[in-house]
Amino acid sequence: MSQPAYIALTGGVGGAKLALGLQQVLAPDAISFIVNTADDFEHLGLPICPDIDTLLYTLSGEANTEVGWGRRGETWQFMAALERLGGETWFRLGDRDLAMHIRRRALLQAGETLTQVTAALAQAMGVAHAILPMSDAPVRTRIATQAGELAFQHYFVRDRCEPVVTRIRFDGSETATLPDQIAQRFADPHLAGIIICPSNPFVSVDPILAVPGLRDAMQRSGVPIVAVSPIVAGAAIKGPTAKMMRELNMPNDAVAVAKHYLGLVHGFVLDTQDAALAGPISALGLRTVVTPTVMVTLADRVHVAQQTLQFIKQFQ
Amino acid sequence: MSQPAYIALTGGVGGAKLALGLQQVLAPDAISFIVNTADDFEHLGLPICPDIDTLLYTLSGEANTEVGWGRRGETWQFMAALERLGGETWFRLGDRDLAMHIRRRALLQAGETLTQVTAALAQAMGVAHAILPMSDAPVRTRIATQAGELAFQHYFVRDRCEPVVTRIRFDGSETATLPDQIAQRFADPHLAGIIICPSNPFVSVDPILAVPGLRDAMQRSGVPIVAVSPIVAGAAIKGPTAKMMRELNMPNDAVAVAKHYLGLVHGFVLDTQDAALAGPISALGLRTVVTPTVMVTLADRVHVAQQTLQFIKQFQ
Repeated sequence: MSQPAYIALTGGVGGAKLALGLQQVLAPDAISFIVNTADDFEHLGLPICPDIDTLLYTLSGEANTEVGWGRRGETWQFMAALERLGGETWFRLGDRDLAMHIRRRALLQAGETLTQVTAALAQAMGVAHAILPMSDAPVRTRIATQAGELAFQHYFVRDRCEPVVTRIRFDGSETATLPDQIAQRFADPHLAGIIICPSNPFVSVDPILAVPGLRDAMQRSGVPIVAVSPIVAGAAIKGPTAKMMRELNMPNDAVAVAKHYLGLVHGFVLDTQDAALAGPISALGLRTVVTPTVMVTLADRVHVAQQTLQFIKQFQ
Repeated sequence: MSQPAYIALTGGVGGAKLALGLQQVLAPDAISFIVNTADDFEHLGLPICPDIDTLLYTLSGEANTEVGWGRRGETWQFMAALERLGGETWFRLGDRDLAMHIRRRALLQAGETLTQVTAALAQAMGVAHAILPMSDAPVRTRIATQAGELAFQHYFVRDRCEPVVTRIRFDGSETATLPDQIAQRFADPHLAGIIICPSNPFVSVDPILAVPGLRDAMQRSGVPIVAVSPIVAGAAIKGPTAKMMRELNMPNDAVAVAKHYLGLVHGFVLDTQDAALAGPISALGLRTVVTPTVMVTLADRVHVAQQTLQFIKQFQ
């Protein structure tokens, strides 16, 4: 008999921490990662997929864990030379990281889909667990701010999330389709649970949920769906989630995240610092589990993965 | 009164040695370099211009004089990472060198001509002397060999000049046009001489001469045209010139080079090791000067530049 299989929805750095924990405790055919591609953009003529790359680097042990993004042992000779030539340097591309984008471009130019390209890159990097782009067609996050509408990376990297967010939309998501690879995994009879990683709900998870057919596929699967809170004690572990929540006029706490996922998830994983919020979240009709969710070490990541899988099993 | 001005035709490494010598002894407005672009190719989605880059690096003091190509202080992190991803690595792109191609691509995509892009890159690199691509439209050297026809860089780099050459043609040269920047310099009343640098006659200088209007412009200028021999004592100082000459059934000596340029040049600069060939070359109707032309040090380069300019002055 085949073992139970899981699907995790994830963005970049925050979600990748849990993805690494899940990779540590589950075999390659027992977990698939569906990754946000709405942060992707073309820069300097290269197709940059920040969240896919974060997963590739994290799951291959290539992530730079000291600075929290990019590649281990990265160097910046290219960037320094480009700066001297007057090129754009607001988005930092390391020498080793560049190889990923150049190789991806070559494979895309040869006619492969982003799903196929990502599988080839993962294989070359030694990653056996499936990293699945949420869509092969481009979907692009556009951030409406008080300073006008911005492409995601302009908001996120160039402008350091400083503009006040008023609205978020996902350009191209109406016409995107769910890749077969993803549809098949949701239809897998061994599917035992779906995990929403502690990624930004608005710019990492929502674009995945906006791919036509994905939300339906999740619900039709009939398996428990649980989210791990990206907000702990009113602050985002990583990135601008809490700031965005304030700007979007919601309380910046785990309850608001749980409400955001209401109607989709059945369970919610809360940090021990937020134990007092278990009551209000239960009152929304969700099951909860309270456990340390701040992931600093690899052991922390494994702990959250194990707790989340344990939580899912309790639904059966 | 304005000073006399010169034009030099050059390919990559061999010609760039004399170009550096000329740069040392002439002011920016006294010398222009017309550079072969028939070695250019698109690789990994990037526009690579090997001869232009060699000039840019040489004239900015950025050339790697130890290995004879590429940039000083170059690193290879990108290449190592690309190899791991299964990418093409036969053409070595250093981390710093990559910046040049990425920046060139961005400027070309923005609608600038190769002439404009090269001027911008030269300015950013601190090169005040004019580096002028022979054409803004692509011209591509194709090498017919006993192993079939090859794109130049496949012949030159990937196959290390090993296939036996049977014929050389310049794809696109019929429809190429002389950039205005070049036409103006040939028409400059202060033009005092034209120098053919010691580059490969067949794959570096011939493609320049094949640009419609260029040979005419040289001849109509009425100034002395002199070539510096790329062959010394029957061997090429750099690259496959001598090997090509044997394969194209010509003697691999300076006389054959002089014959190749017959009808175009008025003078020929010969190495002291080939002093005995001054007679046969004079017999072709060319003036000659015999001087050490092997350029190892910067002083050697300056010496050949000075001797060549002195030689041109003797025509007046």
